[in-house]
Amino acid sequence: MATTQPLAPAPSPFVADCPTRQVLDRIGDRWTMLVLLLLDRRTHRFGELAREIDGISPKVLTQALRALERDGLVVREVFAEVPPRTEYSLTDLGRTLVGAVSAVADWATAHIDEIQLHRAAFDAR
Amino acid sequence: MATTQPLAPAPSPFVADCPTRQVLDRIGDRWTMLVLLLLDRRTHRFGELAREIDGISPKVLTQALRALERDGLVVREVFAEVPPRTEYSLTDLGRTLVGAVSAVADWATAHIDEIQLHRAAFDAR
Repeated sequence: MATTQPLAPAPSPFVADCPTRQVLDRIGDRWTMLVLLLLDRRTHRFGELAREIDGISPKVLTQALRALERDGLVVREVFAEVPPRTEYSLTDLGRTLVGAVSAVADWATAHIDEIQLHRAAFDAR
Repeated sequence: MATTQPLAPAPSPFVADCPTRQVLDRIGDRWTMLVLLLLDRRTHRFGELAREIDGISPKVLTQALRALERDGLVVREVFAEVPPRTEYSLTDLGRTLVGAVSAVADWATAHIDEIQLHRAAFDAR
């Protein structure tokens, strides 16, 4: 008789030690979202990303890109030029995430006035 | 002649002091996402949320709920019983955000294996 392997529990971010929680943290990071949105438009060089994301420090941008590369969402290519050129692009996996991230960013942009009215009312009570 | 008011710049999370950045941080928070997903199913009491979100402390849950209430995404109702009963529900505004948050959480759940393979490969190189 064939033995059946017990089913692993389905991944769920409601479970404390499920790795999906870390992934939610990574995706939910503001810098991650902004990098993904820019790379969805086109490949960018490091300096281009740094200029387009107002207020990001080179160190934080480096960390965000490295985490995205580690997760397989972004690919980094170095071209042997003088000075060397480094370009960042979305992978196929990264591309599958962009729709959801865009929806979150679009929601924030569309509803910011309403949110600020709620905040003012809450703080005044 | 009628004077026209200059157009305010469109909100953009790429601009450092745009309030959409704070909103992205709030939405991107793991606890916020998990609370929104649970409240989308039904109204919850505080203790129910605390039980369903494995590992959240009462203090952190209180902070997350208060921030969601301040932003107008969640409404808190207190019923004068003994002991008093407090229930949390999504507002109409909160409901407009759930689709995007679900898509992010579903993406994390669907791709967790692939991400972990990428991480292992990255760490081994």
